[in-house]
Amino acid sequence: MESLLNCAEEQQPSSPLAKALSKKQEPSNDPKPKGVGGFVLVHAGAGYHSESKAKEYKHVCKRACQRAVDQLKAGALAVEAVAAALVELEDSPFTNAGMGSNLNLSGEIECDASIMDGKSLHYGAVGAISGIKNPVLVANRLMTEAQKGKLSAGRIPPCFLVGRGAHDWAVSHGIPPWPSEKMATKFSLSAYKRNKRKMELAEKMDTGENQKKKRRQSSENTSSVENGSGCLDTVGAVVVDLEGNVAAAVSSGGLAMKHPGRVGQAAHYGCGCWAENACNMNPYSTAVSTSGCGEHLIRTMLARECSTAMQSEDAHQALLDAMQNKFISSPFLASEDRVLGGVIVLRCCRCVETQPSQNIQGILVEFLWSHTTESMCVGYMSAQDGKAKTHISRLPPGTVPGQSLAIEGGVCRLMSVVE
Amino acid sequence: MESLLNCAEEQQPSSPLAKALSKKQEPSNDPKPKGVGGFVLVHAGAGYHSESKAKEYKHVCKRACQRAVDQLKAGALAVEAVAAALVELEDSPFTNAGMGSNLNLSGEIECDASIMDGKSLHYGAVGAISGIKNPVLVANRLMTEAQKGKLSAGRIPPCFLVGRGAHDWAVSHGIPPWPSEKMATKFSLSAYKRNKRKMELAEKMDTGENQKKKRRQSSENTSSVENGSGCLDTVGAVVVDLEGNVAAAVSSGGLAMKHPGRVGQAAHYGCGCWAENACNMNPYSTAVSTSGCGEHLIRTMLARECSTAMQSEDAHQALLDAMQNKFISSPFLASEDRVLGGVIVLRCCRCVETQPSQNIQGILVEFLWSHTTESMCVGYMSAQDGKAKTHISRLPPGTVPGQSLAIEGGVCRLMSVVE
Repeated sequence: MESLLNCAEEQQPSSPLAKALSKKQEPSNDPKPKGVGGFVLVHAGAGYHSESKAKEYKHVCKRACQRAVDQLKAGALAVEAVAAALVELEDSPFTNAGMGSNLNLSGEIECDASIMDGKSLHYGAVGAISGIKNPVLVANRLMTEAQKGKLSAGRIPPCFLVGRGAHDWAVSHGIPPWPSEKMATKFSLSAYKRNKRKMELAEKMDTGENQKKKRRQSSENTSSVENGSGCLDTVGAVVVDLEGNVAAAVSSGGLAMKHPGRVGQAAHYGCGCWAENACNMNPYSTAVSTSGCGEHLIRTMLARECSTAMQSEDAHQALLDAMQNKFISSPFLASEDRVLGGVIVLRCCRCVETQPSQNIQGILVEFLWSHTTESMCVGYMSAQDGKAKTHISRLPPGTVPGQSLAIEGGVCRLMSVVE
Repeated sequence: MESLLNCAEEQQPSSPLAKALSKKQEPSNDPKPKGVGGFVLVHAGAGYHSESKAKEYKHVCKRACQRAVDQLKAGALAVEAVAAALVELEDSPFTNAGMGSNLNLSGEIECDASIMDGKSLHYGAVGAISGIKNPVLVANRLMTEAQKGKLSAGRIPPCFLVGRGAHDWAVSHGIPPWPSEKMATKFSLSAYKRNKRKMELAEKMDTGENQKKKRRQSSENTSSVENGSGCLDTVGAVVVDLEGNVAAAVSSGGLAMKHPGRVGQAAHYGCGCWAENACNMNPYSTAVSTSGCGEHLIRTMLARECSTAMQSEDAHQALLDAMQNKFISSPFLASEDRVLGGVIVLRCCRCVETQPSQNIQGILVEFLWSHTTESMCVGYMSAQDGKAKTHISRLPPGTVPGQSLAIEGGVCRLMSVVE
């Protein structure tokens, strides 16, 4: 028989509690509990979340957390729970992923998504896929199919498919096609019309040679394209289950008015999400999901950089340093005046318990979010919580988006009593 | 007035010469020579190069080196020279890139390519692109367009385009479309027919449930799909110019009989190529291009891993360790019995000269290749050489491809006398 204890405390991860609990043991030496439970952290995009829509963003985060927790309670692994959270985020018309995604230059929706399983270190991704309601399910299916081994005649299964080929592969694997016109919402359609007018105006102002030479300046003198959902990009989630397995996923409709065929960080290995269970070389299991300007997140490979950084002692300081040195001040983005993005991160380790009983095992989960965009909406929940907590994090007043950052987080202790 | 001295000595980079020369100075403190010159290393794929076609592979490497050197002699930067080398490699019907690429499951050619400039750290890539003769030129154009700054109405230019959108972007930027039927060769077409028969045979042997359950075993019991060119994947090049700028590029037709829309490492940031000039944190400039099984190269992010490894003192040992620990024994490929790939690498630093004159500047170039495939065909040349040297590197007799590796290389000293 097994029973579960859990406590979640929202506080700075660098607190004395975190330090006291993080006397980690070698993960491989611990007997694995077979119980159910875990923790999920989700985000509904880094960008600008208006107060008027705050309730909607929080609601969808709450529902996504609940979906993941339902899975965890039913005994699902982290990777299954993270996919469930993403489906809920994609299905919301308010997020820029799946339903309600930004429209591209041709007025079409093309989505990117990826998923990574920290246990197997397998990965699946789709880019510029149309006519599929939940792109994350295609990424997930690619990952699980690849884990089955080679295809007929020794062919290596793909981990990344794009465009029409990705759509056809999905349908041939039982994922139903979805009419493209049902993916757009009245918000995304009206944003498209406004953006189209803004572009025409901007291009009228700079014609011929002038346009080519002064491209950067012109963009600063005219009104910028807006993103339909108010968010720059992407939704995502990170999960740890009670066995200590981590998983991460990300999904995005991409930048508004992007060129058809453009693939953003959500489909880029190491850029959109990352998950790695603890191993001999890494004391912590880590999971990361990113959001923001895809090109900035790709060129800095932010998901993997944050994951690597989280192996150092102080999680809060490590993420602060990574966001500052590997993102805002990254030499890869030296020519950018504003570097826009956000991350959610969790790391965990088995920990020594304060209880005298030998049969109590604990996992210390430190969870953080950080962003250089004006705001970022997050939600989190452990399997023992009655409901998810949600929060819209905002940059401190007077700071400049793309040059400053906000960072917050908490600590959660997952405990299981094993016979 | 400027004159150039150059000596290339093919030997182990860990030799006394390499050590004596690598007393590096801070690159930023050196005055930059304005001269022309540099060094190029290319490969025509890691896989199996039959003796009967050895001459052809060597020829194309030789021509690619010459094209890059012609550019360098005309004053081009490393990134322009590397693109020129790639065009030559793509144009050969014997390589699996551009013309003569492997056909996919539908009998079509879809190409991946990317390029990275170590000076600007900008990057461009195309995936699953059809109907374009030289995919690397689209990747290069994406990179140069992105460097011009934002598009109209503040839109961020893409660094990665796929499929039809990539094709249309290329054509709208002056790159002419190329009839797809002219991309296939009699070799690639006949390989496609043989592969199709093999697949049908393999699938007939395992039907229904049996096929799903025993996928891995079935692939081992039947003849494997062959790659038309004899190479698994990909061509590439790395270049350093006389200013010490490095660049890398890669191009591939992908695995034979791949699913339409499959994107391999050649279009994956950090996986297909990497180039980074020396900076405060990195004493060496490094450039890497990879070849082999795309999924293995993606999941290990091999290009960037090798680049990072090359910052340690002994280049030869660093690459050996990286290929062993980050590739063959990578935890990311724990379930793979054979890990197939190859890399070409160069690293360089400004060095103290043995000449007493103050106006002689030198760049020490260490260049290496390593592969776990049966063979890898490489060529290299400095701007002062009369012609390129070529070589087909093979695994030592008795070793197992995918589990063993070969590693070779040399050292070249580029010197310029500045007034």
